[in-house]
Amino acid sequence: MKVARYSHKGKTGIGLVTGETVHPIPDAPGMIALITDFAAWNDRIAGLVSASGGIPLAEVKLLSPVERPGKIMAIGLNYADHAAEAAMELPTEQLWFAKAATAINGPFDPIDLPKVSTALDYEAELVIVIGKRCRHVSRADAASVIFGYAVGNDVTVRDWQFKTSQFILGKSFDTHAPVGPWIVTGDAIDPSSLEISSYVNGERRQHSNTKYFIFDCAAIIEHLSKVMTLEPGDLIFTGTPAGVGAVMKPPKWLVEGDIVKVEIAGIGAIENRVAAEVSRL
Amino acid sequence: MKVARYSHKGKTGIGLVTGETVHPIPDAPGMIALITDFAAWNDRIAGLVSASGGIPLAEVKLLSPVERPGKIMAIGLNYADHAAEAAMELPTEQLWFAKAATAINGPFDPIDLPKVSTALDYEAELVIVIGKRCRHVSRADAASVIFGYAVGNDVTVRDWQFKTSQFILGKSFDTHAPVGPWIVTGDAIDPSSLEISSYVNGERRQHSNTKYFIFDCAAIIEHLSKVMTLEPGDLIFTGTPAGVGAVMKPPKWLVEGDIVKVEIAGIGAIENRVAAEVSRL
Repeated sequence: MKVARYSHKGKTGIGLVTGETVHPIPDAPGMIALITDFAAWNDRIAGLVSASGGIPLAEVKLLSPVERPGKIMAIGLNYADHAAEAAMELPTEQLWFAKAATAINGPFDPIDLPKVSTALDYEAELVIVIGKRCRHVSRADAASVIFGYAVGNDVTVRDWQFKTSQFILGKSFDTHAPVGPWIVTGDAIDPSSLEISSYVNGERRQHSNTKYFIFDCAAIIEHLSKVMTLEPGDLIFTGTPAGVGAVMKPPKWLVEGDIVKVEIAGIGAIENRVAAEVSRL
Repeated sequence: MKVARYSHKGKTGIGLVTGETVHPIPDAPGMIALITDFAAWNDRIAGLVSASGGIPLAEVKLLSPVERPGKIMAIGLNYADHAAEAAMELPTEQLWFAKAATAINGPFDPIDLPKVSTALDYEAELVIVIGKRCRHVSRADAASVIFGYAVGNDVTVRDWQFKTSQFILGKSFDTHAPVGPWIVTGDAIDPSSLEISSYVNGERRQHSNTKYFIFDCAAIIEHLSKVMTLEPGDLIFTGTPAGVGAVMKPPKWLVEGDIVKVEIAGIGAIENRVAAEVSRL
């Protein structure tokens, strides 16, 4: 099942996507409320696809599936090839950082080229969407707390990432967490072997497969939940493969007008244009 | 003005605190909504203290002033003495990390002794509460986006803080961001010279003054807002002075039953008991 948040004729809605059609879920609450209560909605949703004519996908604007996540956690160096290109040792311990929740962005909205940096980079990532409030989840139970998966771009401002020992500022610029195009529910996809790629202006820059994860989704959930309660709608970025702009010689930073696409087989693609930062106050 | 969130006879409210009395604000929305719209509420609030008999402070339970902040940012090594004891160089660049929003805790609620660690430590901190949605705030304008100040304890699990290069997991255990006892509004206090102390079971462990900040509140707001939009109710922990348990020889970790008090002159004190972690699902 593909669950999307969209706007259509000035109204925001949540719907199921089949083929090129969005089937609106009538009276759907926000995505986090829907995820929290998904079991109760399942019956109503089941009849939806046959009953409704739906809206052509081309007529809606897809929005970030979770409007404002409670938290965005991200693991670093989770593909062996990316650890190698970053000249960092293969981790034996999961390396976690956060992106500020205010960095959330839609799957087709502009990415800011910040006023304070030009070292703008992309990172193609599989994103886990948490489905249940949980803590101390075992590997065996991890799948049961996952609502689904989406495509994400862990956009990074490299000079700010490395200004100090802590990555967070370089990971948290507004608009630097585009996610989408929808959430594929966990029952519909196996996250352990998905092809993942990124493209800049059509040129493929990253290409790998989640089977090369150093820490798989179950290991990630197990580890994070030792520390903190995970909640419906929390987003977990699962790391990026080799091929980021920073490691090219010379580095190939994103510039204004670039189109960055991240694609994951079985989920879909998000595509964001780089644009000069504008005020959103 | 002191603005508190409390529970009284099973109901949650927001009120002004004067002396030993809480004056409930009738029909107050949540704290974030109140902060966002504070100018509009000011008139109604002004008449409150004289009009209402109020509730004795001793009869309410004070809660974390912001129930669920959008984000909790924290600066490291912001007092010269703490940088020295941690054997870390005096920073020339602001060192930022985050605490997960799920770590928020009340001013008098238990702090979890985690199941997965015994290296539990305290950090007395002044907390800035953001009042306005803002970005790219100059030093000169910083005071205008601050709603007020509270006392915080940046509770830290030291072994998890240093398992990898990134601090976040050691800073983000559930209950490890107690804040309170209320918010003192920015017009009522000068954050540039406040005595700050922590006590464990009555023994003073930290004692300094915010005049020893390496980066003051205005510098903090200016820097953070270059990266991200700050929003009403966002919490900013401003760093801790010397005297944490980790640097004692041998380290003095917090143990079950310990009472940790953090006090800031002109604001008040929070006091949390260390208790074995319990499930809150």
